[in-house]
Amino acid sequence: MRNIALILMYNGTAYHGWQVQKTEVTVAQTLERGLSMVCGEPVKCTGCGRTDAGVHAEHYVANFRTSSRIPVDRIPFAVNTHIPEDIVVKAAYEVAEDFNAIGSCIRKEYTYRIYNSRIKNPFYVDRAYFYPKRLDEQVMDRAARAFEGTHDFAAVRSVGTNVRSTVRTIYYCHVTRNGELLELKVCANGFLYNMVRAITGTVLYAAEGKLKPEDIPVILDSGNRTLAGPTAPPGGLYLTRVWYEDERLNG
Amino acid sequence: MRNIALILMYNGTAYHGWQVQKTEVTVAQTLERGLSMVCGEPVKCTGCGRTDAGVHAEHYVANFRTSSRIPVDRIPFAVNTHIPEDIVVKAAYEVAEDFNAIGSCIRKEYTYRIYNSRIKNPFYVDRAYFYPKRLDEQVMDRAARAFEGTHDFAAVRSVGTNVRSTVRTIYYCHVTRNGELLELKVCANGFLYNMVRAITGTVLYAAEGKLKPEDIPVILDSGNRTLAGPTAPPGGLYLTRVWYEDERLNG
Repeated sequence: MRNIALILMYNGTAYHGWQVQKTEVTVAQTLERGLSMVCGEPVKCTGCGRTDAGVHAEHYVANFRTSSRIPVDRIPFAVNTHIPEDIVVKAAYEVAEDFNAIGSCIRKEYTYRIYNSRIKNPFYVDRAYFYPKRLDEQVMDRAARAFEGTHDFAAVRSVGTNVRSTVRTIYYCHVTRNGELLELKVCANGFLYNMVRAITGTVLYAAEGKLKPEDIPVILDSGNRTLAGPTAPPGGLYLTRVWYEDERLNG
Repeated sequence: MRNIALILMYNGTAYHGWQVQKTEVTVAQTLERGLSMVCGEPVKCTGCGRTDAGVHAEHYVANFRTSSRIPVDRIPFAVNTHIPEDIVVKAAYEVAEDFNAIGSCIRKEYTYRIYNSRIKNPFYVDRAYFYPKRLDEQVMDRAARAFEGTHDFAAVRSVGTNVRSTVRTIYYCHVTRNGELLELKVCANGFLYNMVRAITGTVLYAAEGKLKPEDIPVILDSGNRTLAGPTAPPGGLYLTRVWYEDERLNG
């Protein structure tokens, strides 16, 4: 059996997240159906993370094992003809036998986009969080940077998945503005459930004056989810980069 | 009766164009329904142009007459709560009694977007024309500029609407590249049916070597639609600017 890694992009609007579910359409299941047609056998994928319903990916890595002999460089085109246009396989590589898209992932970067304008923009619906009140990106950036480092992030996650530890390392977390579009970028060795959306909600609380950047270490120490800001909506969230030892997969 | 002009944006993907039709959902009809609720009386809109099914607008002007006393600056918010998110009223102004969004329009600019990359991008579906073969934007720009000036544009329109004359003046027509995104911008005192999409198809023919930029004057002189390139698909087309004597409406 060869072990194949895929690099994907997807617009998550139409999907109930990555992970296969019994009743809802997901990215993994849509991709697996296409891969099964191309490989001529049932295929199961492992993804680099469980993106939620409505969350997007500009660079996502998944892997699967197959006995099909299809040349690896033919896989992207072949699969793309069998899946809807909102999911695109950009590249495929044969990888080491023990490679696992989630277990082998060293770090990931998510980007949360906020459309900050008095008037809604129809081209950002489901693609950025519309926030009509003027936001101060400098306050937001200071709040974002307060999350950097190795901390227990229990205060900024939603309960619902079992994890051994809620300690993670955030390598960078910052906010930049480009016209009406604000971007919060956060890179970590791992993310808890809804962690980026809770960090974004907390950074927005800082912009609204509901907390101060210097409160964030206290909130993290408390481990109390109710002290942090709300979970920002999914449509603004994108998985934008991933890192592996196999550098062909990085982007 | 007051005469009110609206500035709109819309994502045209879900609509059968601007113009009210009997059987299909259009932008005008969706907007009129919202305006009628806000004004408490039936409202009919005049738009600045008939965009086709799937065509978008970043800046569109429409006007309507009403005896409603709603303050004009309340109209955008009020209407936006009654229409879907893919249409947004950005501003409203009371205008001269004889103002007419199409008749008073001095010139318009359309932008045609091409996503030129080997691999499709799920975020540009229905928003840019996907063209996988590398395009030479310099050849395209030379071809585009050949359309500038006052000409009979019968060779680059689709038959289907009655117009007195097929002579128009193109003030500028050029192509620029920004990474994988190509933009053809064309500004004219008026446009024939499908004219921008036919110009785009012809400029793409030049990039493909199927004709030369210097053939374009000959094609225009011939008035023969079959000598020009095909009509490019609607999803790449945006109305981006309009000009009126009432400068509040320009953008």
